[in-house]
Amino acid sequence: METALIGLGRMGIRIAQNLTRRDVKAYCYDIDERAMAKARNIGLRVAKTPHIALSRLRQPRIGLLIVPAGRAVDDAISASLPRLNPGDVLVDCGNSFYRDSIRRARELKRKGIGYLDAGTSGGLEGAMNGVSMTVGGERKYFGIAEPILEEVSCECGLRYVGKSGNGHFAKMVHNAIEYAVMQAYAEGIELLAKEEDMPIGAVLESWQNRSIMSSNLLKYVQRAVANKKRLEGMSSHIGGGETGQWAYEEAAMRDVAFDTLRVALRARELSGAEERLAYKIIAATRQEFGGHEIKRK
Amino acid sequence: METALIGLGRMGIRIAQNLTRRDVKAYCYDIDERAMAKARNIGLRVAKTPHIALSRLRQPRIGLLIVPAGRAVDDAISASLPRLNPGDVLVDCGNSFYRDSIRRARELKRKGIGYLDAGTSGGLEGAMNGVSMTVGGERKYFGIAEPILEEVSCECGLRYVGKSGNGHFAKMVHNAIEYAVMQAYAEGIELLAKEEDMPIGAVLESWQNRSIMSSNLLKYVQRAVANKKRLEGMSSHIGGGETGQWAYEEAAMRDVAFDTLRVALRARELSGAEERLAYKIIAATRQEFGGHEIKRK
Repeated sequence: METALIGLGRMGIRIAQNLTRRDVKAYCYDIDERAMAKARNIGLRVAKTPHIALSRLRQPRIGLLIVPAGRAVDDAISASLPRLNPGDVLVDCGNSFYRDSIRRARELKRKGIGYLDAGTSGGLEGAMNGVSMTVGGERKYFGIAEPILEEVSCECGLRYVGKSGNGHFAKMVHNAIEYAVMQAYAEGIELLAKEEDMPIGAVLESWQNRSIMSSNLLKYVQRAVANKKRLEGMSSHIGGGETGQWAYEEAAMRDVAFDTLRVALRARELSGAEERLAYKIIAATRQEFGGHEIKRK
Repeated sequence: METALIGLGRMGIRIAQNLTRRDVKAYCYDIDERAMAKARNIGLRVAKTPHIALSRLRQPRIGLLIVPAGRAVDDAISASLPRLNPGDVLVDCGNSFYRDSIRRARELKRKGIGYLDAGTSGGLEGAMNGVSMTVGGERKYFGIAEPILEEVSCECGLRYVGKSGNGHFAKMVHNAIEYAVMQAYAEGIELLAKEEDMPIGAVLESWQNRSIMSSNLLKYVQRAVANKKRLEGMSSHIGGGETGQWAYEEAAMRDVAFDTLRVALRARELSGAEERLAYKIIAATRQEFGGHEIKRK
């Protein structure tokens, strides 16, 4: 199997490594020369342009876009177009706004090119070992890309979820829930920490073993809480928040009171100005699962 | 090994079954004659009074209390006292308020009797196969009860968490986080449901396989969402809420803004009066993991 992979950021480079390990030929490209050098150093196949990466493939060609939401996606599509023929498929594995994905799919459909929106979750460990994916778009294009997406995904993690946009809509909601769940963990742990002589690490260990709330996220929260030195040295600022904001607006338009998300978004706003253990736990947890930067005090 | 087990409700009877299967002799008692008959029918060892159950044991005797919070715990202690000698240990495995547990431990200490507060989680499946437990109280009494508690717990699920009250304090926070996390899932899924042709079951399946938010709780949410007939026929009323209310008050006293919990508690208040998918998902999820009753429309 073979694919072109555009975007060698934290997620992209790990997905490329995972594919390579699974004997999928992944021709990789990134607009940033340092990312390209890094990829070359760890033995990935790199191509000087998206164009070249795609031209290595037999038809139908499948290109994976793993770039930041917004302009970068449109740019990656434009750079790929000269090498795409009817029947080829691009898969946006990033965190694009679902309405943008619907538009892009519509534009490419005119040229007979498939466009899938793949909501991708699992953080850095998932990228390396198999992510979970909700994929929207025309079913025939999903059928073409499916064998490659199976290689990117963990066992049972790949799901076709219907019409164009659905994959990224689901990811938007996924991230929104994730914000709210992190907020809940962080607020609760802050309360635990206010009780004298409460061994938080031991409590979280017990919870992580078969309690109702054991979860993948809690594993990263545990690591965030265990690293006391980092918590002490860091500012309370929580980064990110764009997908959550989209979800909140979409919920408001549809009369859904997404109040736990509102709390989490408000916390992110306040986090820069107010020092609070809960905020630090969230920022450190984001670093644990996604490699997101934290600010020093 | 042997123990006396007082309280054969949904959790108690399953813990008794689990212990029996693991060759622990559990002498069981419940104040309700129907619960006793049910226990007898499935082959458990029953005793006509807590007194008799305890008198079967060699010293130091270990009694597990698995009864509803409040008066029932004090009653169970009073009924056990005539058979307890210095060095014996009672373990409250229920959802008692931690300040009550501290008081009870202090009172029993005067008689030389140990009292441990064990925050127990895992729902009905956990009770049957091993729960997670955070145990507070004097360490010497934990040492005495530990072998029995290991049998009640899943592998790595048992943790000693320090002074008297800490076990139930941790459980109070556990439940509070659980309320908020359920609320987050439910609100998010309500948003998903507002998008046309969104196959919610497939999305949750993908999330449950290695996404950042895969969790034990999500498994029960999946079952709640899958049972469409139940969702249609049920009222939006969400039961329970006591532990969450305690946690909210304790947080307020300690200047912790537990806002995700506030949202979840408010939802429980409103749930009786307002029909909403999110509320139904929460009520059905509680039934799935804990066997809590739902109301019909």
